[in-house]
Amino acid sequence: MVETNQHIIVHGDQMVCLDPGGHKVFNKLFKQMSSIGPLRNIKYIFFSHQDPDIVAAANGWLMTTDAKGFLPAVWMKFITHFGVDTMVIDRITPIKDEGMVIDLNGCPLKVIPAHFLHSPGNYHIYDPISKILYSGDLGASVDAEIVVVEDFDHHIQFMEGFHKRYMPSTKALKMWVNTARELDIETIAPQHGSLFKGREMVNRFIDWIDSLECGVDLMGDRFLIPE
Amino acid sequence: MVETNQHIIVHGDQMVCLDPGGHKVFNKLFKQMSSIGPLRNIKYIFFSHQDPDIVAAANGWLMTTDAKGFLPAVWMKFITHFGVDTMVIDRITPIKDEGMVIDLNGCPLKVIPAHFLHSPGNYHIYDPISKILYSGDLGASVDAEIVVVEDFDHHIQFMEGFHKRYMPSTKALKMWVNTARELDIETIAPQHGSLFKGREMVNRFIDWIDSLECGVDLMGDRFLIPE
Repeated sequence: MVETNQHIIVHGDQMVCLDPGGHKVFNKLFKQMSSIGPLRNIKYIFFSHQDPDIVAAANGWLMTTDAKGFLPAVWMKFITHFGVDTMVIDRITPIKDEGMVIDLNGCPLKVIPAHFLHSPGNYHIYDPISKILYSGDLGASVDAEIVVVEDFDHHIQFMEGFHKRYMPSTKALKMWVNTARELDIETIAPQHGSLFKGREMVNRFIDWIDSLECGVDLMGDRFLIPE
Repeated sequence: MVETNQHIIVHGDQMVCLDPGGHKVFNKLFKQMSSIGPLRNIKYIFFSHQDPDIVAAANGWLMTTDAKGFLPAVWMKFITHFGVDTMVIDRITPIKDEGMVIDLNGCPLKVIPAHFLHSPGNYHIYDPISKILYSGDLGASVDAEIVVVEDFDHHIQFMEGFHKRYMPSTKALKMWVNTARELDIETIAPQHGSLFKGREMVNRFIDWIDSLECGVDLMGDRFLIPE
């Protein structure tokens, strides 16, 4: 099973949980969040896109807390297939294609479009106080087994296969690079694997994405018919 | 909730179910399949990609039948987040990127790659006997409320928004067009909405996909940061 990071942003007595993950981490995460503050402080649950490792436990989170959910508008009609209860579906706010700002107790969290990285409807979150960008699947690494990247060149091997295969199009990467360069980022925190900390490491990562080809751009002019 | 079609291919006394859908259709579909033949005839369950409307009930299907599942290899490590039981995970065969042929009682079903339409790991199924291509999300229509397309031009309005927004890249569409033109197709059957029946309608659909621009190709050079 692919490992997932669950990120919590706390500002004063309010918390938001980013991509809470599936059933198998539900109890553990619930307990860890309780140690940060009372559960009534969980104001929001953010679902960056529709993948199983993100939304599988959506119903559980909404049933057991009073939190408001945020989900890409384009996936609203799909999430109900999980069995999200009609009792809680009204507590999910659809995020329009252009993104939005979520007010966390006075901290304006920027929900920035990152469509097609990899999901058609997908968002990153920028926290202007900590200057952390939550980047979902972008920057994901597999089996690196370190919390913070220390040697970028050494770390490429843990990211390269995933980014080339799961990211649809080089153009989507370039769009993200142009947006990321406009932000003042101190940390990039992906949903899987290690964090990029410090401006030098952040810039190394942005430059690496800028140099990458991926998805359909690495494929031929047709899909081959298997024999 | 987006409506989903569940397709069953029957050959002799063996059946395969294509994209069985989520919890909310589970009981109904189970009952309908029983009316086609005994449940022991369900030989395979095919999951074209990882979306909730496809894999949410995977565990239920594998627990209540003896069927073998087929799932894109790239999603194998993700599906366990749903709570797919360790007892049944070994009954799922990963489909490699190049696709495969599934033998249904002597009928060689072609599992043809259709990556990035929309999911990074995604397959269509071509049945060489009925000459039906199961096309997953490609060809999906919303609210058309007819089983078979009669007037193609009139039908475009029910497909256009979805294909432009959910399909990542025009190149992926062109790759599919080149592949589809190599197949002898009498019917295209998508996961949502109406069927395309007859060679004329099939060719109209292929030509329409060939004319379409989508996804990142309709977007600017960056994602805008919301204020």
